[in-house]
Amino acid sequence: MVEALEQNEIFIPVDRLREFVEAVFVRLGVRPDDAWVVADNLVAADLRGIHSHGVARLERYVKGLKDGLIKPVAPCSVLFETAATATLDARDGLGQPAAKYAMEMAIRKASESGAGFVAVRNSNHYGIAGYYAMMALSHDMIGISLTNSAPLVVPTFGREIIVGTNPIAVAAPAAEGERPFVLDMATSTVPRGKVEVYNRKEKTMPAGWASDETGKSTGDARRVLDNLVKRRGGGLLPLGGEGETWGGHKGYGMALLIDVLTGVLAGGAFGAHVYEDGPDGKPKPANVCHLLGAFDLKGFGDPQAFRKSLAQYANELRSSAKADGEERIFVHGEREFEMTERYEKSGVPIHPKSVGSMRFIAGELGLPYTLD
Amino acid sequence: MVEALEQNEIFIPVDRLREFVEAVFVRLGVRPDDAWVVADNLVAADLRGIHSHGVARLERYVKGLKDGLIKPVAPCSVLFETAATATLDARDGLGQPAAKYAMEMAIRKASESGAGFVAVRNSNHYGIAGYYAMMALSHDMIGISLTNSAPLVVPTFGREIIVGTNPIAVAAPAAEGERPFVLDMATSTVPRGKVEVYNRKEKTMPAGWASDETGKSTGDARRVLDNLVKRRGGGLLPLGGEGETWGGHKGYGMALLIDVLTGVLAGGAFGAHVYEDGPDGKPKPANVCHLLGAFDLKGFGDPQAFRKSLAQYANELRSSAKADGEERIFVHGEREFEMTERYEKSGVPIHPKSVGSMRFIAGELGLPYTLD
Repeated sequence: MVEALEQNEIFIPVDRLREFVEAVFVRLGVRPDDAWVVADNLVAADLRGIHSHGVARLERYVKGLKDGLIKPVAPCSVLFETAATATLDARDGLGQPAAKYAMEMAIRKASESGAGFVAVRNSNHYGIAGYYAMMALSHDMIGISLTNSAPLVVPTFGREIIVGTNPIAVAAPAAEGERPFVLDMATSTVPRGKVEVYNRKEKTMPAGWASDETGKSTGDARRVLDNLVKRRGGGLLPLGGEGETWGGHKGYGMALLIDVLTGVLAGGAFGAHVYEDGPDGKPKPANVCHLLGAFDLKGFGDPQAFRKSLAQYANELRSSAKADGEERIFVHGEREFEMTERYEKSGVPIHPKSVGSMRFIAGELGLPYTLD
Repeated sequence: MVEALEQNEIFIPVDRLREFVEAVFVRLGVRPDDAWVVADNLVAADLRGIHSHGVARLERYVKGLKDGLIKPVAPCSVLFETAATATLDARDGLGQPAAKYAMEMAIRKASESGAGFVAVRNSNHYGIAGYYAMMALSHDMIGISLTNSAPLVVPTFGREIIVGTNPIAVAAPAAEGERPFVLDMATSTVPRGKVEVYNRKEKTMPAGWASDETGKSTGDARRVLDNLVKRRGGGLLPLGGEGETWGGHKGYGMALLIDVLTGVLAGGAFGAHVYEDGPDGKPKPANVCHLLGAFDLKGFGDPQAFRKSLAQYANELRSSAKADGEERIFVHGEREFEMTERYEKSGVPIHPKSVGSMRFIAGELGLPYTLD
């Protein structure tokens, strides 16, 4: 679901925003190509309305690089490889260039073998998952992108945060002139950012979003955030909510599945060990893990037939009867493409807090502040 | 979630049940090998507590074969093939032998190329998805099994059933002596069978399970079932329930994703076209589609390290703090394995209605009834 900005957002031209973010990473020692990928990925999130993964996150990347937990230069090394699979070591580098490299490798393998899947260990936050899945589209391929993430979610019947919000993204091309299918979703009911919004607005959250220190669903956003910081128990609930009545065990299962196909498969950190502190109580490198995959449509049949069927399916969904009071049925990705088109004209809406943070970063790094 | 039987179930020894079901299919012209696979798959569902996919379904298979909509003998043909991918035509045969054949092919491809994915079109109901995913376990592989299914689910903001309950199953092997991870879930909040149970018991369903003819969530099970039969609108809600508040668009997205990777990718039926009637108003062959996949652990690293990490993860989940009033945190598959072990000793609990139906089938086909 596209996140609504709260108020007073400032509209910044896309190119100017991307260039500024790129310059920040270059200044921190990141190679220009890699800096561009990170900048493009963060701005793509804001363009798609996923502001929690946009430039609002820049501060955290800067801190990671300054603290030495993220390495500015870390070319991926290949640990294992077959015709259709590989595992890479991202050597504590930025997640974005590592995931892009892995996806390019998956695409190459898919063009030779029909399918390609590349796991990555020792990586970092890679931004929006859909960015990499969409790389496959221009190759007549289906793209798949999974990552594990910092533990924020409690397992069904539990009250400790052991699982990440572990997202899955899949992109598939439709017929010429039709938008592709782009699913990009976390496996928790809501992201942490949504709890933060309810806290700021002092609103009660719907049941099924988060649990308190007893492990039961609560509407009290402040309590959830406070408990998360102090590790007192409770956290985000998996898709499907508390217990099994609404299928919470399915959301929990999806989150686990994604961790099995990333952290466990790549031989990196999983569950509570992602973003874990070392024995000295200090943060260790995050050891985030990803899996990037591609299916070549030609490996299964006629790509044109696939594209046509997907467009037909989307049209059948969109034109089907609406629930009372609803005007539109969406196919995944469509809302984000429309938003991107709008923001490419209007500029990207950025929260004043994020703008302030970028001004501060520019000052700290001695970079010209070019966003006014 | 394991389904509870309602009452008065009859316990039938596993082998005797499997042999009876096998004999039914052989009598209907199915080759003994294929008949065994279908029987083994149906009995495996009952052993795992998924009775909606067990021998309770035998009657429908028998009807499909008698009506000629399911072909008793239909060897799969290969339509497209690369090193790591293929698409098969199941030629309106039974889903179980087709999916088993496809999974064997995926495993072969994975052992040669690291990964293997085989799509199947023109197939039928293939029983429990997890059956095929688990075939990969003994090969040191992760198994993946997806299928589309009859439309029963409304898209977010819609009120027409266009999407199936499209399940996903993934099985991954753990260390020696530890149970594998086996996720096997439909992408609707609950299966239709659950609505039927609430109807029989005249209980009000929790909000978020199903919608009425206006497209809004309802607790009235009778109304939902009646509307489904008469196609008046409404149906099962995707995982996450009505609208977007609890992530219903994510469950809807998962269901679509699975249809894209089965019906659309295999070049078969998708959405409302699965189990569609012909222009003459009579049922056509179902044209169910599957995708069976395998990842060879050796293609990504050391299989022993994977198995050890998975067992460690499962133990960390199980031993983590429980929510108030809860005694146990489950890892997916574990409950079903425990149930299987119990039923292998006690016999498989079968609903008296299903037992009656099998007695009737035996009479009709002139087969000895061997289940007393």
